[in-house]
Amino acid sequence: MGKAHSHAWRNVGAIFDVPAVERRVLVGRNEQQVAAAAGRLGWQEHSTDWRAVIARDDIDIVDICAPGALHAEIAVAALAAGKHVLVEKPLSNSLDEAEAMVAAASAAAERGIRSMVGFNYRRVPALALARQLIADGRLGEVRQVRASYLQDWLADADAPMSWRLRAETAGSGALGDIASHAIDQIHFLLGEGASVSDASGRLHTFVDSRPGPSGDEPVTVDDAAWATLGLTGGPVGAGAIASVEVSRVALGAKNALRIEVYGSRGSLTFDLERLNELNLFDAGDSAETQGWRRILVTEPEHPYAGSWWPAGHVLGWEHSHTHQIRDFLVAIAEGSAPSPSFADGLTVQRVLAAVEQSAAARGVRVDLAASTTI
Amino acid sequence: MGKAHSHAWRNVGAIFDVPAVERRVLVGRNEQQVAAAAGRLGWQEHSTDWRAVIARDDIDIVDICAPGALHAEIAVAALAAGKHVLVEKPLSNSLDEAEAMVAAASAAAERGIRSMVGFNYRRVPALALARQLIADGRLGEVRQVRASYLQDWLADADAPMSWRLRAETAGSGALGDIASHAIDQIHFLLGEGASVSDASGRLHTFVDSRPGPSGDEPVTVDDAAWATLGLTGGPVGAGAIASVEVSRVALGAKNALRIEVYGSRGSLTFDLERLNELNLFDAGDSAETQGWRRILVTEPEHPYAGSWWPAGHVLGWEHSHTHQIRDFLVAIAEGSAPSPSFADGLTVQRVLAAVEQSAAARGVRVDLAASTTI
Amino acid sequence: MGKAHSHAWRNVGAIFDVPAVERRVLVGRNEQQVAAAAGRLGWQEHSTDWRAVIARDDIDIVDICAPGALHAEIAVAALAAGKHVLVEKPLSNSLDEAEAMVAAASAAAERGIRSMVGFNYRRVPALALARQLIADGRLGEVRQVRASYLQDWLADADAPMSWRLRAETAGSGALGDIASHAIDQIHFLLGEGASVSDASGRLHTFVDSRPGPSGDEPVTVDDAAWATLGLTGGPVGAGAIASVEVSRVALGAKNALRIEVYGSRGSLTFDLERLNELNLFDAGDSAETQGWRRILVTEPEHPYAGSWWPAGHVLGWEHSHTHQIRDFLVAIAEGSAPSPSFADGLTVQRVLAAVEQSAAARGVRVDLAASTTI
Amino acid sequence: MGKAHSHAWRNVGAIFDVPAVERRVLVGRNEQQVAAAAGRLGWQEHSTDWRAVIARDDIDIVDICAPGALHAEIAVAALAAGKHVLVEKPLSNSLDEAEAMVAAASAAAERGIRSMVGFNYRRVPALALARQLIADGRLGEVRQVRASYLQDWLADADAPMSWRLRAETAGSGALGDIASHAIDQIHFLLGEGASVSDASGRLHTFVDSRPGPSGDEPVTVDDAAWATLGLTGGPVGAGAIASVEVSRVALGAKNALRIEVYGSRGSLTFDLERLNELNLFDAGDSAETQGWRRILVTEPEHPYAGSWWPAGHVLGWEHSHTHQIRDFLVAIAEGSAPSPSFADGLTVQRVLAAVEQSAAARGVRVDLAASTTI
Repeated sequence: MGKAHSHAWRNVGAIFDVPAVERRVLVGRNEQQVAAAAGRLGWQEHSTDWRAVIARDDIDIVDICAPGALHAEIAVAALAAGKHVLVEKPLSNSLDEAEAMVAAASAAAERGIRSMVGFNYRRVPALALARQLIADGRLGEVRQVRASYLQDWLADADAPMSWRLRAETAGSGALGDIASHAIDQIHFLLGEGASVSDASGRLHTFVDSRPGPSGDEPVTVDDAAWATLGLTGGPVGAGAIASVEVSRVALGAKNALRIEVYGSRGSLTFDLERLNELNLFDAGDSAETQGWRRILVTEPEHPYAGSWWPAGHVLGWEHSHTHQIRDFLVAIAEGSAPSPSFADGLTVQRVLAAVEQSAAARGVRVDLAASTTI
Repeated sequence: MGKAHSHAWRNVGAIFDVPAVERRVLVGRNEQQVAAAAGRLGWQEHSTDWRAVIARDDIDIVDICAPGALHAEIAVAALAAGKHVLVEKPLSNSLDEAEAMVAAASAAAERGIRSMVGFNYRRVPALALARQLIADGRLGEVRQVRASYLQDWLADADAPMSWRLRAETAGSGALGDIASHAIDQIHFLLGEGASVSDASGRLHTFVDSRPGPSGDEPVTVDDAAWATLGLTGGPVGAGAIASVEVSRVALGAKNALRIEVYGSRGSLTFDLERLNELNLFDAGDSAETQGWRRILVTEPEHPYAGSWWPAGHVLGWEHSHTHQIRDFLVAIAEGSAPSPSFADGLTVQRVLAAVEQSAAARGVRVDLAASTTI
Repeated sequence: MGKAHSHAWRNVGAIFDVPAVERRVLVGRNEQQVAAAAGRLGWQEHSTDWRAVIARDDIDIVDICAPGALHAEIAVAALAAGKHVLVEKPLSNSLDEAEAMVAAASAAAERGIRSMVGFNYRRVPALALARQLIADGRLGEVRQVRASYLQDWLADADAPMSWRLRAETAGSGALGDIASHAIDQIHFLLGEGASVSDASGRLHTFVDSRPGPSGDEPVTVDDAAWATLGLTGGPVGAGAIASVEVSRVALGAKNALRIEVYGSRGSLTFDLERLNELNLFDAGDSAETQGWRRILVTEPEHPYAGSWWPAGHVLGWEHSHTHQIRDFLVAIAEGSAPSPSFADGLTVQRVLAAVEQSAAARGVRVDLAASTTI
Repeated sequence: MGKAHSHAWRNVGAIFDVPAVERRVLVGRNEQQVAAAAGRLGWQEHSTDWRAVIARDDIDIVDICAPGALHAEIAVAALAAGKHVLVEKPLSNSLDEAEAMVAAASAAAERGIRSMVGFNYRRVPALALARQLIADGRLGEVRQVRASYLQDWLADADAPMSWRLRAETAGSGALGDIASHAIDQIHFLLGEGASVSDASGRLHTFVDSRPGPSGDEPVTVDDAAWATLGLTGGPVGAGAIASVEVSRVALGAKNALRIEVYGSRGSLTFDLERLNELNLFDAGDSAETQGWRRILVTEPEHPYAGSWWPAGHVLGWEHSHTHQIRDFLVAIAEGSAPSPSFADGLTVQRVLAAVEQSAAARGVRVDLAASTTI
């Protein structure tokens, strides 16, 4: 993640009209490694002491790519020190920490200090276009959302044990890691006013032990997760339902975040493995020419695309990060609140917690508090 | 359905090596309509009295396309009269009736009388090939199945009320109508020995009233259904999970039965809107050339395909019925038990009932009796 | 071909509103084989004497699937005997014969006798829709057509020698066999008023000898052919160009007739291996939602489709023949001229001849007579 | 192009293990514009005097993105000054200039000075993989290549006149601009030893005048071009044929460089609009599982991909340039000859010249000198 964020910071100013940014200090745990990385990735300095860096006057922005367990501590300290903060998703490993972060962000905002959580897929041009089309009413009332995120890097039963496969270090498995993206997308695409009202969930671990350095160790997180979510508000009419399925053992799926949104007047589909494309079905087209439009989202009229290359020259995954930095810098410059906020990150985690709670209770639906607005 | 079955009976003998069959009598409720249909569809006679037809000596086979509420009565009578019986899916509208039919089929089988339920998609060449590949171990242990069946003929909120939208006549909505196909496919693809051990379900009606002849009437069946199913046995290793999602309001999906099967060594995907294609990912291919193979299932080596046209000359939907008749006739001729049996049809209905029961209990998982073998 | 035509004759009346037809006599060369085929394919009688059959009063229509070398003789005789005639493509093996057939058809037409050449792909619903859209001006002025027809049944260098690979029996190779379809489609899609004004061609044989019963024999026809064609008239503005590429050794292509039409306001693409789909790009869509629409051509509004199954239930290759018979019967009943006429078949052959002539002259462009109207 | 090259220079060191590079001077014609660009794109200095820059001791490498008419002069001077030179394609606007550049490059090489022409698509991972597979014999003998490059930025007849549409400034239209890429790919994919032996060509201008600042002006270059090329040597057996079609008016095609290679044992297809994918058909797969493998070329085993992101995280168009710079720097460091060389660039131009010559002679085939080895 540090590599991808560095890439974004390195390039954003060459493509977008944003305030100039210096890449001042790269912070890491291992002196030697962080020194090498800083040189390679183009940072002026390096450090192993994040507290010292936060204390510096010449630092305005802190971008947190550390493991989730450290997010809350660093973010709260940085905001208190008056730094704008971008934190990688998920916001934190626990709801308590997330709530503390939201409180800190809220206090900071009153002093003009900005914060943002890094659900970078909001900045994929095709998904940004999808949100626009839904907001414009092109889909009418949204009824069904199908969101899946399938990967296969754990499909091999001999893939080794790691911290990501232990509940105590990772919190959860596919659920927290990738269902979080899927759920944030549902929020993002439906837009302001929509919310998840209830959740039913299921978790499963297909490979329950894996080789560690000294023999097999138990895997204590899920390999895959399933949920249905009740949706209300926003473009949702008399109630909509989202299904979510995520897996890290779906052999042949590499980075397949797939989203389908079915509405009363139109529908959309998307696949992250073909991230430059959005498919639109518009029931307003004449009966004999209705069909799924494969839109290559590289035109000047498309979100972000006009600043890059000519039409048809496709973008890569990493520019979801470049666009995220762009939007963060613009919000700071304009003095507006960046999106998604820490509160948005907390909302995603409340949904994940409800899924987990339901899964522990054999799938029975769990209501989310009415206050859990998206 | 009568039209599609007639098409199959009309053509099966020209394509496959089966015993000669005469299309003797078409039975219907309305004298005038059934007379016209018999002429157009190529039946020698017509009748409005199924009991009289069943009593005839020159009738060997009865193919039941009547509404589900009539299946049990006709099938039981026909079997008792010594006729081989093919009955359209779903087997019946109630579990009680289905059980009676299974009992009748079992008794008849002892006298050499054959019976079969019409889950015609088992005879789509690509799906028959999929089953073969799974049985051959090409996928290793099956872990996840994703099955969805999406249509949109009820997407328009102004589509009129009909008997299919009333619980008393149709039993259920998308669940019984199309989830039955999806669930039968899961059984079919996993093969002998596999079974559904539990189910969690959810149902939703998006358009809760529709225009009838004298004003709006309440819709009392589901527009869409969701389920997760626990799977055991057969190619399933330490437990597999299937997700099922069906809808009749998924705008832009016309007849999209989509099935994905992820295993430890390979994976498969299929879409009924492109029914001549099966996609296979084989983890045994070399690392740099692994990919999803789009197999055009029209080669002489493929199920059913060799009897038709040269390779690459694609088949249509209706030939799932032609192949079904072919296999039924061959089983009768050989004196073997056709598949899927009435018992297979009952198994599907038990799963549907469990989904409905779970949905009524806010999604809590329902265990299927150990006896519910696929 | 006899099998596919028989299939069409067997089914047309069950699907379409056409005059009743009896399948009276199947004619073939080998008594035993034709007897078996007649039984299997559902013909009342069989014969080995086509002249005797043509002389019968109870025969109204003659459908000629014999090898190309026999087309002219049978067709001219049948027309003289007052029979309506459908002849498989290509019209004949020589231009002289084709001209004689056109003359016979013209004379017969004055007596109300109808004739038609079997370019069955004109009746694929997606291609019929494509023609409609072009005629409606949805593409504006047509500029470029890309037509290819790729197969691979000769890709294996060990595939055996046959009559199709000898110039004296087959006339030409891929050129006459499949480029004829591609060129007829260009005519069909552009519609009345358009014509091919010149042609440049190239032929190549990749495998120049193949195993015969007594050792290797020379292949004397082309494995593949390339052409560019100048187009004028109809929807063509200031001149359009078509490129054509056909091959029987394109490994992995099974029956891939692919057509792309680029116009000033819209474009279309089609692939016979996915024959239920037509892709439309409409420059009239708003800039941010322009894209290729994948139209599933199975709606009631689509050509032929409404008479078959519900939307989304796809058709197979053979129904291009069923639709052809339907249109032929309707034309006979209505007393109108069926299309494509023998003259249309002759036009295709003149283009093929120009391609061959150009290929023999190192590709230099050959002008087609101004009279060669499509 | 300057923006894309700058992007590559900015990022190459963060991703690949290459010698450190400073981005010293950006040269342009307009003082104000080049100053702004240098700041935005991350160059230390700017200049409007390329001769002065070339004379500097602290400059080691010159990357020429100037218009084609300036390539020869700058490149020859830079090589003479002992600078390594990368020049954008096409090598030059005339064969004479190209030959002078090849001579200069050859002389420089003896002094260890390196030169390279920027056919960046050689560095798309999927195409690099394709070349590897062909070199490994996975396709057997190559028989047919289909290469097209379709764009639509001139489809609108009202798109304005520009220097690119005048023969005196642009040399040619789609032919030089994009057919050059297609032809270089043919060379690249077939590899050492293969060559183009002859060419037949056709050019067409669909919109022959366009609005200029003071009224309509004549367009004097081609909108589209077609060619067939005879191929010999390398993986070509008894002769192969390539077809080439390029257009800038193919409505709906945005940047569609599509390449299909058909061999005796396997085939490949590629589309630049989905540049992370390569499709492989392998006749060695078992008969019932043969199909087109869609390979997502983002695995560690794939060319270039391992240095980027995890599998499934797709790359964008611009990294063909990043990879090009990487390979150029590695060649300089290793003292090896970069590829493609100026001689390779000249070979492409000889083929283009032959196509043009043939087009002027109504398509008659033009032989390329035996010496024109790829």
